[in-house]
Amino acid sequence: MKVTVGLIQMTSLEDPAKNLQKAIAKIRRAANRGARVICLQELFRTRYFCQSRNRRFFDLAESISGPTIKVLSMIAREKKVVLIAPLFEQSPNGAYHNSAVVMDADGVPMGIYRKTHIPDEPRYYEKFYFKPGNLGFPVFKTRYGRFGVLICWDQWFPEAARIAALKGAEILFYPAAIGWYQAEPRQLAESELQKWEIVQRGHAVANALYVASVNRVGREGQLVFWGNSFVADPSGNVIARATRNKEQILLAECDLSQLKKVRQAWPFFRDRRPGIYQTLTGKR
Amino acid sequence: MKVTVGLIQMTSLEDPAKNLQKAIAKIRRAANRGARVICLQELFRTRYFCQSRNRRFFDLAESISGPTIKVLSMIAREKKVVLIAPLFEQSPNGAYHNSAVVMDADGVPMGIYRKTHIPDEPRYYEKFYFKPGNLGFPVFKTRYGRFGVLICWDQWFPEAARIAALKGAEILFYPAAIGWYQAEPRQLAESELQKWEIVQRGHAVANALYVASVNRVGREGQLVFWGNSFVADPSGNVIARATRNKEQILLAECDLSQLKKVRQAWPFFRDRRPGIYQTLTGKR
Repeated sequence: MKVTVGLIQMTSLEDPAKNLQKAIAKIRRAANRGARVICLQELFRTRYFCQSRNRRFFDLAESISGPTIKVLSMIAREKKVVLIAPLFEQSPNGAYHNSAVVMDADGVPMGIYRKTHIPDEPRYYEKFYFKPGNLGFPVFKTRYGRFGVLICWDQWFPEAARIAALKGAEILFYPAAIGWYQAEPRQLAESELQKWEIVQRGHAVANALYVASVNRVGREGQLVFWGNSFVADPSGNVIARATRNKEQILLAECDLSQLKKVRQAWPFFRDRRPGIYQTLTGKR
Repeated sequence: MKVTVGLIQMTSLEDPAKNLQKAIAKIRRAANRGARVICLQELFRTRYFCQSRNRRFFDLAESISGPTIKVLSMIAREKKVVLIAPLFEQSPNGAYHNSAVVMDADGVPMGIYRKTHIPDEPRYYEKFYFKPGNLGFPVFKTRYGRFGVLICWDQWFPEAARIAALKGAEILFYPAAIGWYQAEPRQLAESELQKWEIVQRGHAVANALYVASVNRVGREGQLVFWGNSFVADPSGNVIARATRNKEQILLAECDLSQLKKVRQAWPFFRDRRPGIYQTLTGKR
């Protein structure tokens, strides 16, 4: 019931092929160091192109049966690891999504999550590129545990975390691409990083599960990605945290047998009142 | 748009009349020091009697038109403050609730919240005493702002905070009675206090509102109530925090005009997807 999670925090190069090669090398290293579930950062194959609106970037998209997932499947099988690989996805009907593919430890893709909540802010023009997810909040029953995957902006929505928990997630993975605007005042910057961490640790507590968040580092255009990939346990304790500016393979052991104990001691799921939560699903 | 909140963190005596007198004195003092919205702790009039199951404690209950709310209404009017007063409530139909009455600054009771999520743990046998709330999650439009009131165990449920936010709450008040079991190992105790704070700061961030939590102090029976009443701003920063073992009037200035700015910069409410949150209201 113990599983070591590996989060791959990277900088991103201009050339997608080089990012893929770098990710593969790091996946192998993480696996060799004991990771059994490995998660890459959001849109790991490319720079964070959403800083501008430019149609040519649509050419970076791939289908889930494309070459990236093919090669990663082989790596997952080779290293016997569960692999969570974000993908700029072109769907069969030609829509584009900000997605993540989950491969089981035999290398077989189990399914896909498509980012549900799409931001659209200065330097994060994601509504231009991505159709909001239409596959709900799947939980993947892998060889090493039941995992939910949510992506970046989803981090701020308690609804997404809760639904994944209700569907049985033991670890919630959050691949992200979040950073500071280069001109941001230091105090504001610190406050933003802190609220990003707090809200996710809150999800860990409220849902009595592990949260594993993996963010990129490095400067790209006007953004300085803030790294700080971390794993929080079901009590909200940060059990592993990466630096803010260096590439890092962050490993953390998650004891999934703890969840049952925490949920016995803190039985939130017994006392939920779904019958009076209609406002959450209402039109407003 | 700036309002000073006053949280009354107290020990509790055996005699309800003395607790009421103490609370009134502290309300006056808080008002004199500038508080415009004053919140008392959960079941402030009595000891935390839920440590055992004993029918005689039902005699401690009062109706919302009983003497406690009558006198507090007069104080609210006298000091021109909004007053949030928890009450062990006997409803007209004879059911008992763990409630809170909100009085506007003219002293008129605006309505009542009845605790929705009822715990039932060793030393917190609340399901024996309290019928779960049946009035939803009202938000009170007072002279000094729109306030939601949730009570203790509600703190752990993101659904409750979100619904109050969707209904317009600018500050969420959480009267509480939470503490350590006397025999609890120190490390566990610290972890529990931390997760209590984290989950509520998470609500502040996710809903871009202020959270004001007021807890009792002192030892009663086997429990040592942990105080630590606090106010968090919409970025999750703790802007005021009380001690863990002393009576305290905690004051914090909340700038409600900030909410609009925070919500413009972090437009979570734009990007919610209520159409795909059905799992939250489903039977499970």
